[in-house]
Amino acid sequence: MDKYRVLEIKESVFESNDREADKLRQELKQEKTFLLNLMSSPGSGKTTTLMATIEALKDDLRIGIMEADIDSDVDAATISTSGVKVIQLHTGGMCHLDAGMTRQGLEGLGTDDVDLAILENIGNLVCPAEFDTGAVKNAMILSVPEGDDKPLKYPLMFSICDVLLVNKIDVAPYFNFDLDKCIERVHKLNPNMKVFPISALKKEGIEPWANWLKEQVKEWQEA
Amino acid sequence: MDKYRVLEIKESVFESNDREADKLRQELKQEKTFLLNLMSSPGSGKTTTLMATIEALKDDLRIGIMEADIDSDVDAATISTSGVKVIQLHTGGMCHLDAGMTRQGLEGLGTDDVDLAILENIGNLVCPAEFDTGAVKNAMILSVPEGDDKPLKYPLMFSICDVLLVNKIDVAPYFNFDLDKCIERVHKLNPNMKVFPISALKKEGIEPWANWLKEQVKEWQEA
Repeated sequence: MDKYRVLEIKESVFESNDREADKLRQELKQEKTFLLNLMSSPGSGKTTTLMATIEALKDDLRIGIMEADIDSDVDAATISTSGVKVIQLHTGGMCHLDAGMTRQGLEGLGTDDVDLAILENIGNLVCPAEFDTGAVKNAMILSVPEGDDKPLKYPLMFSICDVLLVNKIDVAPYFNFDLDKCIERVHKLNPNMKVFPISALKKEGIEPWANWLKEQVKEWQEA
Repeated sequence: MDKYRVLEIKESVFESNDREADKLRQELKQEKTFLLNLMSSPGSGKTTTLMATIEALKDDLRIGIMEADIDSDVDAATISTSGVKVIQLHTGGMCHLDAGMTRQGLEGLGTDDVDLAILENIGNLVCPAEFDTGAVKNAMILSVPEGDDKPLKYPLMFSICDVLLVNKIDVAPYFNFDLDKCIERVHKLNPNMKVFPISALKKEGIEPWANWLKEQVKEWQEA
């Protein structure tokens, strides 16, 4: 496998993560690179969603993916089959990425030729919500098997995200998942949250989400 | 709702968590209380598994449950319907419980009349693995929809647990989940890991797991 690099990222030394995140965002603005931070529980389908999103957008945007994981390269290996640029980031046990760590990843990836950079954060609904990575937008996935009560239990994550992908809707008949109730709980925490029900595996519902994302990238590049 | 108490637990001040955990275990040994630390991703079915486990064991053991959550009381409300003693622990945003926090929970629960205390830890495959809670055994749940690659991605969690419940096996036909491959990956990290495939919702496979747990409690109380 030489289709992707593996980068061991180091703990950040910056005093203020928020300041570092703002600085990174300003630099990305100048470079006309849009950074999306994608978060979720383990196993909600982040990588599969990325594969479907790449397929929908790769003719329109130059895409680069950062796959953060505590260990293993399985996700970068998967993404590399899509033909887009990808780097595997190993966090050495860290449960989240902050702006300094994201900067290391972006430098490793190289963003000169990237319109849309996506960080697949560590699978964790708690810690990643507490750290601004410097992303322009935060996205999260909640998969149907996890249950419609998750906004009640992980309110910060649902509060800081701009968009929610409700994934694995193809298996909804086999679970007690009430989409309306879930969305109601989400909007109580975060009235502006965009919600897209999708099945990444079955490639259902991808177009509205991909169009929304493309629009965000264009706005960022043109504003 | 007055069937359970809600306790706001505070961050621990102990210098060495490992020492505090050992001390707690020794005290539990003298009280003949067995403490199980149950961990998993969000939405893997911890509370449903507890409900099925309580039903299988409540005639044989005096059970007390600590439901840890960042926010919400939904799990304690559910458990309280089983008739066993339960307390809801709020961690105030903390992503894990350590031994000091677990001690606060046990004191809140009251363990004089408890053979088996179970801590439902925060839904998170990363941080809880790093902190000894003082439990006699660590258990984890991996649910089928999360995927059979999770041992590759969260190796520490799979390494420090004594028992793995593979939950939601009733929906296995709708997912690409290879149980044999999963168990092979688990045993590569942790050759002694006990594995029980279950469906907590359908109450399938509960008896072997409950019998194993009952045996552990008896050994702890008699040794």
